[in-house]
Amino acid sequence: MKTIKVAIAGASGYSGEELVRILLGHPQVELTAVTSRQYAGQTLAQVFPRFALSPAARRIQFIEPDATALAKLAEVVILALPHGVAAELAVPLLAKGCRVVDLSADFRLKSAAVYKEYYGHEHPAPDWLAKSVYGLPEVYREAIKSAALVASPGCYPTSILLPVLPLLKAGLIQSEGIIADSLSGVSGAGRKAELDYLFCECNESLRPYGVPKHRHLSEIEQELAIATGKPMLIQFTPHLVPVNRGMLTTLYLTPAQPASGETAAAQLAAQVAASYQAAYANEPFVRLLAGKALPDTKNVTGTNGLEIAWRVDPRTGRLIVISAQDNLVKGASGQAVQSLNLMCDFPETTGLI
Amino acid sequence: MKTIKVAIAGASGYSGEELVRILLGHPQVELTAVTSRQYAGQTLAQVFPRFALSPAARRIQFIEPDATALAKLAEVVILALPHGVAAELAVPLLAKGCRVVDLSADFRLKSAAVYKEYYGHEHPAPDWLAKSVYGLPEVYREAIKSAALVASPGCYPTSILLPVLPLLKAGLIQSEGIIADSLSGVSGAGRKAELDYLFCECNESLRPYGVPKHRHLSEIEQELAIATGKPMLIQFTPHLVPVNRGMLTTLYLTPAQPASGETAAAQLAAQVAASYQAAYANEPFVRLLAGKALPDTKNVTGTNGLEIAWRVDPRTGRLIVISAQDNLVKGASGQAVQSLNLMCDFPETTGLI
Amino acid sequence: MKTIKVAIAGASGYSGEELVRILLGHPQVELTAVTSRQYAGQTLAQVFPRFALSPAARRIQFIEPDATALAKLAEVVILALPHGVAAELAVPLLAKGCRVVDLSADFRLKSAAVYKEYYGHEHPAPDWLAKSVYGLPEVYREAIKSAALVASPGCYPTSILLPVLPLLKAGLIQSEGIIADSLSGVSGAGRKAELDYLFCECNESLRPYGVPKHRHLSEIEQELAIATGKPMLIQFTPHLVPVNRGMLTTLYLTPAQPASGETAAAQLAAQVAASYQAAYANEPFVRLLAGKALPDTKNVTGTNGLEIAWRVDPRTGRLIVISAQDNLVKGASGQAVQSLNLMCDFPETTGLI
Amino acid sequence: MKTIKVAIAGASGYSGEELVRILLGHPQVELTAVTSRQYAGQTLAQVFPRFALSPAARRIQFIEPDATALAKLAEVVILALPHGVAAELAVPLLAKGCRVVDLSADFRLKSAAVYKEYYGHEHPAPDWLAKSVYGLPEVYREAIKSAALVASPGCYPTSILLPVLPLLKAGLIQSEGIIADSLSGVSGAGRKAELDYLFCECNESLRPYGVPKHRHLSEIEQELAIATGKPMLIQFTPHLVPVNRGMLTTLYLTPAQPASGETAAAQLAAQVAASYQAAYANEPFVRLLAGKALPDTKNVTGTNGLEIAWRVDPRTGRLIVISAQDNLVKGASGQAVQSLNLMCDFPETTGLI
Repeated sequence: MKTIKVAIAGASGYSGEELVRILLGHPQVELTAVTSRQYAGQTLAQVFPRFALSPAARRIQFIEPDATALAKLAEVVILALPHGVAAELAVPLLAKGCRVVDLSADFRLKSAAVYKEYYGHEHPAPDWLAKSVYGLPEVYREAIKSAALVASPGCYPTSILLPVLPLLKAGLIQSEGIIADSLSGVSGAGRKAELDYLFCECNESLRPYGVPKHRHLSEIEQELAIATGKPMLIQFTPHLVPVNRGMLTTLYLTPAQPASGETAAAQLAAQVAASYQAAYANEPFVRLLAGKALPDTKNVTGTNGLEIAWRVDPRTGRLIVISAQDNLVKGASGQAVQSLNLMCDFPETTGLI
Repeated sequence: MKTIKVAIAGASGYSGEELVRILLGHPQVELTAVTSRQYAGQTLAQVFPRFALSPAARRIQFIEPDATALAKLAEVVILALPHGVAAELAVPLLAKGCRVVDLSADFRLKSAAVYKEYYGHEHPAPDWLAKSVYGLPEVYREAIKSAALVASPGCYPTSILLPVLPLLKAGLIQSEGIIADSLSGVSGAGRKAELDYLFCECNESLRPYGVPKHRHLSEIEQELAIATGKPMLIQFTPHLVPVNRGMLTTLYLTPAQPASGETAAAQLAAQVAASYQAAYANEPFVRLLAGKALPDTKNVTGTNGLEIAWRVDPRTGRLIVISAQDNLVKGASGQAVQSLNLMCDFPETTGLI
Repeated sequence: MKTIKVAIAGASGYSGEELVRILLGHPQVELTAVTSRQYAGQTLAQVFPRFALSPAARRIQFIEPDATALAKLAEVVILALPHGVAAELAVPLLAKGCRVVDLSADFRLKSAAVYKEYYGHEHPAPDWLAKSVYGLPEVYREAIKSAALVASPGCYPTSILLPVLPLLKAGLIQSEGIIADSLSGVSGAGRKAELDYLFCECNESLRPYGVPKHRHLSEIEQELAIATGKPMLIQFTPHLVPVNRGMLTTLYLTPAQPASGETAAAQLAAQVAASYQAAYANEPFVRLLAGKALPDTKNVTGTNGLEIAWRVDPRTGRLIVISAQDNLVKGASGQAVQSLNLMCDFPETTGLI
Repeated sequence: MKTIKVAIAGASGYSGEELVRILLGHPQVELTAVTSRQYAGQTLAQVFPRFALSPAARRIQFIEPDATALAKLAEVVILALPHGVAAELAVPLLAKGCRVVDLSADFRLKSAAVYKEYYGHEHPAPDWLAKSVYGLPEVYREAIKSAALVASPGCYPTSILLPVLPLLKAGLIQSEGIIADSLSGVSGAGRKAELDYLFCECNESLRPYGVPKHRHLSEIEQELAIATGKPMLIQFTPHLVPVNRGMLTTLYLTPAQPASGETAAAQLAAQVAASYQAAYANEPFVRLLAGKALPDTKNVTGTNGLEIAWRVDPRTGRLIVISAQDNLVKGASGQAVQSLNLMCDFPETTGLI
C-alpha cells in the first residue's frame, strides 16, 4: 500500500490537533513533521497527551516552521496557520515542489481586490490565487486531484455551500434573498487566550458576532457566483454557542417557483430531494436526512460527515434547509484530509471513516 | 405598604420555581400557597433547597391544586401548569372571583379555531378567550391593569414581538417575509424525564426542532396581525442549545423602503433607532444596545431584561434585529409578575430589579 | 433606616461583579464608588450589562483606585483585588479612617513568616496582620463587629472550616489525618485571559491542580490550629471542574473514638448531628441536611448558603462530611457582605436573602 | 488476517454505543449482530446517525436479544445489558459454546454471598462466579486469554485498582485507610430518562451520591483482597459532575514507612515511580505522568488510556495518586475490547489506538 510523507505546519491549535488525530490514524500517510514555534523540541505526545498511545506521537518532535526543512521531510504540507502567516510559508514550499493544503483563508479568494476588502491588506502572493483550487471535494474533486495548492474552505462556507449549491444549480431557488444563520462551537475561535473565550464567558452564553459582514462571506459569495455565473450577495449571521465542537446552519431560501400550499410545497420538497440525491447520493460524507429526522451536531462531531435536512413551509412557501457538521472536521481538518486523499489518489474516505 | 395574597399553581416545574424565587423576594406579595400533586405535603424549602434561606419557603407546604382552597388563600393565582390543565383550574378560580395570570397557552389565542388548529382539540372555555388579556405589558399595559385573566406570553413570542412590533407599527418594515431564528436553553423544554433532554443528549448538541410549524406561531401571528390589521405569516425556527437558561432570537426583516448602500442603510438604522426609542425609551425592562454592542444571553439571565440590537446591512439592504432574554424570566415568570404588578397597581418593576 | 456608603475596589473581576450584584440590592448600602484601572470612565451598566436595570448601575462610573478619593466617598471599602495589590490600597485607606473588608489573602494570616512561606515575599504591612479579623462570621462574629480590617476567607477555607471546626472543638474527630477533597467552578480562577481557562480547555475536562501544597492551606491550618490550640496539618486537593460557580468539598475525618459497626456509627452520627446543631442551628446561612439528602451545588449557587451533610461509614468507622457553597458568594462576596452587615450593626442577613 | 464474528447484546445504551464505535473500526472483528428490544428492526445507522458513514452500520439491523440467534451469528458476544439481565443471556450463550464478555456486574464477584449483600437478591448462576475471569488485562492477562466468560470491570474499580494494586503488592502502602474520591461524567448513569440526569439538573451541578456504600465497593475490595491475601475495606465516594465522559479518581494512601519530610517523601516518590514502572512500563494503555504533569480527563476521553500521577506530601507524609480515564472506554467498552483481543489472540491494542 502506497504511503506518502505529510507534514503539518501549525499543529498546536485546534485544527492542527485534529489534523494530527486524523493523520496518526491514516493508513497511507506517514506523518513526518509538525511545526510550532511555541512547542519546538517537545513531542506530539507531550503537547497532546491524548495521542500518547501512538508510537509516532511519542517519537515526532515539533520543529520550527521552515520551508527548507519541511520540503525535505514531506511531499505534502498541510498548513493550519493563522491567515497571513500561511501564505508566507506556502509560497516557498510550493517553489520547492511541495504540494500544499492550506486551511487558512489566504488562497481561497480568486480576486486580490476582494481579499484586500475583507482582510485589510494587499495579498502577498496574488499569482497563486488563480492557481489554487478551492478544496471542496464535492464540487472541485477533479481539480483537487492535480492541484499543487488546495485552499481548504472555512467551516461556515462548507456548512452553507454544500446545501445551497445543488439547489442553485438546479434552478430550484432564487439567487436573491439567501439567508444563512449559523451556530458555531467555541473551538472555531481558535486556541488563543482572550477574555471572550474564557469558560465563564462562554458557558451559559449565546451571542451573535461579526454582524453583518463576516470575513467568510467573501468566499461563500465567490463560490455561489461561480455556480450561478453572476454576482451573489447573501445574508450571514454567525453565533457563538457553548459547545466545544459543532456547527449548525439554518438556511432560509426563496423557491424559484411559488411553493405555498400543501401541494406546491410537497412538490418542491420532492424536487429538492431529487436535486440533493443527484448531487450527493454517492458522496460518502454528505448525509441526506429522510422522514422526520433533523440534523443534530452530536450526530456528526468527531466525524467528517455533514447532515442535511430540508422542509418546505406550505404556509410561507419558503424552503428551509439545515446542515450540521463538526467545525473542526468537515469544516476544517477532515475536509483537508479528504483533499489530501484526492491529491494522492487514495480512496477518498481513507482515514476518515 | 399594601400587600396582596398570591398563590402559584404548578410550582414544581422550572417556571414555577422561578415564580417562587421572584415572589419570595417581592416586597408587596405574600405567597400564600403553592400547588403540586407530586410534592403535596412537602415545604418549598424541601423541594427547592435553594430557597431554604427564606423563612416563608421553610413554612409554605405544597398543596393539591384545588380551586376552592386556592380561592380562599389568594386574591391572584398564577398558573404554571401544562397546556390544557391550566384552563381546567382557571375557569373555576375566575368564577370564584380570583384574578388569574396564566403562563400556559390556554388563553393566549383569540380564536377558538386557531386554538384547535394548533393544539389539536376544542378549546375548553372559549368564552374566556375574548375576555383574557395578552400579558405583554409593553403592549397591553392598560388592559392588563384591570384584567381578570391575563394570558402571559410564551418565551419565543416575547423575544420576537418586542423587537418586531414597533417596526411594523412605524411602517419601517414590510409585513411579508419576516424570519425569526431562535435559540433556547433546555429549561424551555420543562422539567420532564425524557431521553431528548438528558444531559448527555443535550450537552455538545445543537439542533432545530418543531420545523416549520411550532405552536407558538399562532400567538405570534395573532399579535402581529392585530398590529398591522391584516393576516400575518412569519417564518420561525426554534433550536435547542446547551444552556440552562437564555433565549437569543435573530430576526431577518425586509425594509419598507430599499436600504442598500451605505447612505440608505445608515438612514434606516437611524429610523429604527428612533422607532425603538419612541417605543421603549421609558420601558424599564427593554434595553436598546448602542454602538458595537450585540446581545448576549449572559447579560440578561436571572433578570427580567430583554436586550435588542439592530444592524442594516448595506450590501443586502436587509434589517437584522437580535434580541436576548432569559426564557424563564422575561420569557415566562418575570413577565407574569410584571403583569401582576400592573394588576395590583404596584410600581411595575417591584420585585423585578 | 440607616444606610452606609460603601465602595468596591477592583469591581471588574468575578468577585467584584458579585459584590456589585449584592450591594445594588442591599437596602442599607449606598454603593458610592467602584474602581477599575481598565474600565475607568465607564459605568457599571456599560461594563456589566446585566445590572443595567438598576438606576445606580447606570449612574456609577468606574474610577481609578485611589485611597484619597475612596476615603472621601465611602465609610467602608471592600477590596476585590489581587493578592499584594490589596495591601497597597488597604493600608492608606485604614490610615484615613476607612474600614476595610479585604477579599484577598493579604491579611488572613497572623504570621508574617507563614505569609512569606506561602506567598513568596515579605508581607508589606505586618503590623496589620495582628489587627485584622478573619472574616468568618460563624466563628468571629463579635470581633468582626468592631474590626477596622476584616480579612474575608477564601472559598476553599470556608468550605472546609465550617464543617470541620465544630467537630474538632467538640472533640469528635482526631486532629490528625484530616483530608479535604474539593471541586471548584472555573470562576474561582478569576477573570483572566489564560489558555488553561478557555472554554474548550475546561469544558469536558476534570483535573486536579496545586497538589499537594495549595496556598489556601496556610489559612486553613492557621484557623484549625487556633481551634485546637496546637499546630495542624491537613491534606487538601483542589480540582477544577466545568461549572461557572460552585464548590463541593468532601472531607474524610477520623473519629476520636472508634466508630466501626452499625451501633457505634449511628452513635457518632448522632453526636455529629448534635454538634452541628449546637454550632449552626441558629446560623442563617448554614444548612444541615437531614435524612438521605446530600449537598448539591445547584442548591446554593447564587445564594450565601452552605450545605453540610455527614455520614459515618460503619464498615470503615470513618466520618465523611460534605459541604456545598457558591465559591463567589459564601466563598467570597456574600461572606464579605455578611461581615459588612456585622460591622455596620445591620441584621446579618440584610441583602443576602 | 484472521477475523472473528462478534455480537453486542444491549447496543443502545452509552456503553453499547461505544462498543459499536470501537468494533466498527476494529480490523479483525466482524460485527455480526446488535440487540435492542426497543430498536429491533432499525439499523445501527438509523439509531446512531454518527455511524452512518460506515457501510456496516447502514446494513446491520438491531435484533431482539435471543441466545439461540446470537450463538449462530457470533463466536463472542459482548453484553452491555443491565445487571441481572446480563446473566440471563450469558448462561444460555455459554451453554451454546459462545464466549462472553460481560460489562455488567453479574459475574465480577467470586462470592455469591457478597453479591447478595450488594445487589439484594440471590445470584442467578453462582456456578459461573468461580469460572468467570475479572477482565482487567493488566492483572489477569493470561487468564483472560482462555476465558469463556470475562466479567469486565466497572469504571470506578478500574480507576482505583490500576493505581492501587502495584503499590499494595510492592508493600509501599498500608492496606488500611485507603480512600478513593472519584468524579464521573453523566454517561456513567446510563441512557435512561430520569429527572436527576436531565441537562438542567446536571449542568452547573456538583454532587456526591451513593455515600458511603456504593455497589462497586464489592468488586474493588475483592480484588484488593486477592492482591493482599486478606480482607480489605476502603473508603469510596463517587461524585456526579457535568461532563459527558471522563472519570477522575484521587486516592489518599498511607505509606507503609513514614514519609514526612522532604527526604523521606522524595525517597517514597522514587519507590512509587519504580513500582509503577515495573508494573506498567510495558502496558500500552497505562500512562505514567512525569514531572509536573497532572491527569486531565480531556487527555484520555475517546481513548483507552488511563493516566496516573502521584505526589508524596512531605508535610503530611501521605501519598496522593490521581488517575484519569474515559468511563466509557478504559472504564467499560474499550477495556472489554482489550479483553476480546486477548481472548482472540489479537495484538492487545488492535482497534484501540
